[in-house]
Amino acid sequence: MKIVAVRVTPIAIKDPPLLNALGVHEPFGLRSIIEVEGADGQVGLGETYGDAAVLTLLQKTQASLVDMSPFDLNGLWARVMAQAPAAQAGAAVEMELAPGSLASNLVNSAFSAFEVAFLDLQARSLGIPLVELLGGAVRNSVPYSAYLFYKFAAEVDPEYAPDPWGEALNPQQIVAQAQRMIGQYGFESIKLKAGVLEPDAEVATIKALKAAFPGHHLRIDPNGNWSLPTSIRVAAELAGDLQYYEDPTPGLEGMAELHKATGLLLATNMVVTSWDELRRSVALNSVQIVLSDHHYWGGLRATQALARTCSTFGLGLSMHSNSHLGISLMAMTHLAASVHHLSYACDTHYPWQEDEVLAGGKVPITGGCVHLTDEPGLGVTLDQDKLAELHEAFLRCRIRTRNDVNQMQRYRPDWTAVKPRF
Amino acid sequence: MKIVAVRVTPIAIKDPPLLNALGVHEPFGLRSIIEVEGADGQVGLGETYGDAAVLTLLQKTQASLVDMSPFDLNGLWARVMAQAPAAQAGAAVEMELAPGSLASNLVNSAFSAFEVAFLDLQARSLGIPLVELLGGAVRNSVPYSAYLFYKFAAEVDPEYAPDPWGEALNPQQIVAQAQRMIGQYGFESIKLKAGVLEPDAEVATIKALKAAFPGHHLRIDPNGNWSLPTSIRVAAELAGDLQYYEDPTPGLEGMAELHKATGLLLATNMVVTSWDELRRSVALNSVQIVLSDHHYWGGLRATQALARTCSTFGLGLSMHSNSHLGISLMAMTHLAASVHHLSYACDTHYPWQEDEVLAGGKVPITGGCVHLTDEPGLGVTLDQDKLAELHEAFLRCRIRTRNDVNQMQRYRPDWTAVKPRF
Repeated sequence: MKIVAVRVTPIAIKDPPLLNALGVHEPFGLRSIIEVEGADGQVGLGETYGDAAVLTLLQKTQASLVDMSPFDLNGLWARVMAQAPAAQAGAAVEMELAPGSLASNLVNSAFSAFEVAFLDLQARSLGIPLVELLGGAVRNSVPYSAYLFYKFAAEVDPEYAPDPWGEALNPQQIVAQAQRMIGQYGFESIKLKAGVLEPDAEVATIKALKAAFPGHHLRIDPNGNWSLPTSIRVAAELAGDLQYYEDPTPGLEGMAELHKATGLLLATNMVVTSWDELRRSVALNSVQIVLSDHHYWGGLRATQALARTCSTFGLGLSMHSNSHLGISLMAMTHLAASVHHLSYACDTHYPWQEDEVLAGGKVPITGGCVHLTDEPGLGVTLDQDKLAELHEAFLRCRIRTRNDVNQMQRYRPDWTAVKPRF
Repeated sequence: MKIVAVRVTPIAIKDPPLLNALGVHEPFGLRSIIEVEGADGQVGLGETYGDAAVLTLLQKTQASLVDMSPFDLNGLWARVMAQAPAAQAGAAVEMELAPGSLASNLVNSAFSAFEVAFLDLQARSLGIPLVELLGGAVRNSVPYSAYLFYKFAAEVDPEYAPDPWGEALNPQQIVAQAQRMIGQYGFESIKLKAGVLEPDAEVATIKALKAAFPGHHLRIDPNGNWSLPTSIRVAAELAGDLQYYEDPTPGLEGMAELHKATGLLLATNMVVTSWDELRRSVALNSVQIVLSDHHYWGGLRATQALARTCSTFGLGLSMHSNSHLGISLMAMTHLAASVHHLSYACDTHYPWQEDEVLAGGKVPITGGCVHLTDEPGLGVTLDQDKLAELHEAFLRCRIRTRNDVNQMQRYRPDWTAVKPRF
């Protein structure tokens, strides 16, 4: 069975003003939606980053995929690689909070989008859920965490009505955000995106969350925005409250020092984003938990191999997320369902996304989990009207490459990128 | 599509009196042939070790696989695991030259046989070559090496006519063996099974091979039968002649010392036969090349993950072999065809095997390679008469667990297992 058409559609989705170490989310997040159509009329879906560099690589590659077999993933890799030099040359802006935007991860980020669509097409043609191609489900429900953000109430220069979540700039507002999110979705783990306020204020937020949710697993992620001394000082205050300590301080060496000093389990999606960094982390004992992401690790099968490598080297495994829609969520879910060695509830930004390209709207999350169904492939299909609408939003939107620093300067003109800030 | 029947057939195949560190091959090698039949009438094939412990585990598991989906490899793992304790309790004899016989590798050895058959069934039902399920071929021809053995001319107490290869107990006879084998199959790499004669005699054999085949890649494998000082001394003599130096001395620590002392690339199928040993080898820098074997590494997909791990940690990868027939050869070939990170020609005992269970007889090896075809699955089918005949040979045969030490005592009553011998 041959592929007869490949479509790459850039879209812009509304994104709330969520704060992080670099600044604030822009009013639109960019995603690329992939459709791979087989000769049997089935369509496989994929989703990945929508920044200019990745989008360019996807667009340069797409025509070369026609007439391929959807099973030929090694051939797909070769075709993406063939277009990579031109795309990499144009990859000017890197944003380390989104490892899929790194030039070094560009091929993986483009490949993975097509790989998911190829696998989805295989599974649809076979009439089986995608997870079966990954070896079958070892769990039918995949747990996710409540991903809490400090945030502004509204965009600086609104292009649409404010999101319903309101402001969150102190512990009480974060607890309220958690109550709302957990009430709605049933999450049993909580992740606080930190590195935003003074560390003492963020410690107070964790303490308030611990008081409000004594049975939940808590994590804090300052995105490498704390110096090693700050990270060590905060560790002493939070040690008993945290399931793991995510990327408090920059660099493999800094994380190794921090682990040696505190003994805390350190997790990362920043210092281990590639196989080479994984090797160096093992040598240094920098981190104990890898937050994987099939988008930049090179797809679903590569992430399964990553799971085995992590298991071999005694590393825990969970999943990182960037702003995404339901295709990515379902790819994450099928993958996580197939992996024995999944140690913790996965991260997802999904509750923050109001837009969706799927027929039937948003994927349900209940009991803190996304649940597999018996539907073929990823189990979701596109709403073409909605896709067209979000593509129109992309065309109208001024953003072509995510830049949270520039966006923060619209709120605070004297804002600069500094790291670590605290 | 469901599995409707699973058959496990132990067979005994004629095996020449090949010498190794422990002793000599017995007159029959044991293999297990797996047939997994789908509701669509297609039959997937697998092959693995036939020693009592593995055979017991295969037989205990087989009934539980009926009604499964051939895609459910995680479910297969669980079913093999469920029967493992009983089988492991009966695993009395371990033979380290055949890592698939190790109790610690028992589950992998049984799982892999079924996994190959499940994948073969998937591919046959889809009408595509198995390699496509592994991501597609990055090469259509897989190179193998000429696997040379010191050997006796005939069995001590012959049950069948002697093999056509004759005696090989000195350099000239090994060169003649190489000329015959390379003339027949076109191999471009040569592996000498060593640890048999005095090391100086084996050095002389390598020197004679180098003179006769100056353009070929040479390897020597004493199966851990040399002390560290002997290994260091021989390294000085052979350094310029070898592509790599395989398992000269026992243990991860010994190999690490040897590499530190000589700088030679060390390969292994003895000190890294599991994920845990791989982790320890990385920590010690014991070996630089892993000779993988899907039979005891847990199947084709696990070996693909091993390839990625080896690539990550800068380790070369090739393939180990025990005496086997064409189903295993084709499984190795489809796997090797799918792996980017295959560094060297693979090993195979296949030229030594006169028997075959396949319709049409032996798989051709030309230009030193096994070549993929467009046939579905592994591309081979069973000759049921031949299978029945080799099963009869198993029933008649006195061997139930390979023991090369005992066999050597039939030639030399004072023979004992000593390691390292030299």
